[in-house]
Amino acid sequence: MKYWKESDNSLKATFTFDDFSQAFGFMTQVAIVAEKQNHHPNWSNVYNKVEFTLSTHDAGDVVTEKDHKLAGSINEIFGKIAVGNRKLKSKA
Amino acid sequence: MKYWKESDNSLKATFTFDDFSQAFGFMTQVAIVAEKQNHHPNWSNVYNKVEFTLSTHDAGDVVTEKDHKLAGSINEIFGKIAVGNRKLKSKA
Amino acid sequence: MKYWKESDNSLKATFTFDDFSQAFGFMTQVAIVAEKQNHHPNWSNVYNKVEFTLSTHDAGDVVTEKDHKLAGSINEIFGKIAVGNRKLKSKA
Amino acid sequence: MKYWKESDNSLKATFTFDDFSQAFGFMTQVAIVAEKQNHHPNWSNVYNKVEFTLSTHDAGDVVTEKDHKLAGSINEIFGKIAVGNRKLKSKA
Repeated sequence: MKYWKESDNSLKATFTFDDFSQAFGFMTQVAIVAEKQNHHPNWSNVYNKVEFTLSTHDAGDVVTEKDHKLAGSINEIFGKIAVGNRKLKSKA
Repeated sequence: MKYWKESDNSLKATFTFDDFSQAFGFMTQVAIVAEKQNHHPNWSNVYNKVEFTLSTHDAGDVVTEKDHKLAGSINEIFGKIAVGNRKLKSKA
Repeated sequence: MKYWKESDNSLKATFTFDDFSQAFGFMTQVAIVAEKQNHHPNWSNVYNKVEFTLSTHDAGDVVTEKDHKLAGSINEIFGKIAVGNRKLKSKA
Repeated sequence: MKYWKESDNSLKATFTFDDFSQAFGFMTQVAIVAEKQNHHPNWSNVYNKVEFTLSTHDAGDVVTEKDHKLAGSINEIFGKIAVGNRKLKSKA
C-alpha cells in the first residue's frame, strides 16, 4: 500500500507536515477514525512528524485486515491534507 | 478580510468541510492557535460546518486587532485544507 | 436525564470547565464518541463553556433514542472530569 | 519531579488512562499547552497509554528548564484527570 511497508510483523509509515499544529490536526482525525474502527495505532509524534506502527494485538501482534483498513483510512486523511479540496466552502 | 464579514460588532464566518472528522481536525488546529494567541473564539459546529463569531470581551465585546489576527490564522488553516500541500512528505 | 432538559424538540445542556484547554479536551472526547455513534451534536463553545443542542435530523429534528444515548455518553465523559479517577496510573 | 525520571539526557514518564478516548483527550490538552510554550514533546501512544521523552533539541538534546516547565504542565493536566474537580458546573 502507498506510503506503508510491512516489516517485523507490522505496517509502518511516517508522515511529515508543515508544523506541529497541522500534525496534531491530522492526529485528531486519525484518532476519530481509529476509535470508530475499534482499532488503535501505535504511533509517535515529534513536532511535524507522525510515525505509525500497526499490528493487531488480539491476533498475536501480526498484520491483519484491520491494520490494512486503518492504514487505508490514514492515507485518505493524509491525501486530503496533501492535495486539498478546492470545493470546500466558506461564507462570511 | 476574505471569508469574514463584520456585523453586530463581531467578525463572522462559516466554513464547510467534507465531513465531521475533517471539520473537527480543523477545529483542533484552531484551538491550538487560539490558546497560543490568548484569544478564544465563540464558535459552533454541526457535522461538517464550523461557524465563528469573533469579538473581544475585554474591550467591551467589539472587534479589535486580536480578532483580525485570529481570523487571519483561521484563514491560513482553512486555506491549507482547501488547497493542500503537495510537498508534504511521507515514507514507509 | 441528569444535566439535560428537553425543550423545543431538543436535549440541551451546558458544561463549564476550568479553562479553554480543559473544555477542548472534553470536546475532543465527545467528538470521538459522537463519530463512533454516527450521531453528531449541535454544539458551541466560548472559552470554558460548552453548550449542546441535540436532536435527530433524519427523524425530523426531534429527540430520539440516538440523542439520549449521546447525552448519556457526554455525561459519562463529564462525570470523569468532575470526579476524577485516582486509580489512573503513571510511572517514571 | 513527581511521575518523571531523568535518564539518557531526557525526562521520561508514562501515563495510563481508562481508554483511548480519555488518553487522546489528555493528549489534546497537552498539545495545546505545548504549542503555547513553543516546546513540543516526543511522545507515543497506544490505546490508553501515553509515553513522553522530553529534551531540548536547540540545546543539544539535553534537559533544560523548558522540559521541566512542560513536564510540570503535563502533571497539572494529568492531576486534574486523576483527581477531578467537583466544582465543575453544568446546567440543563
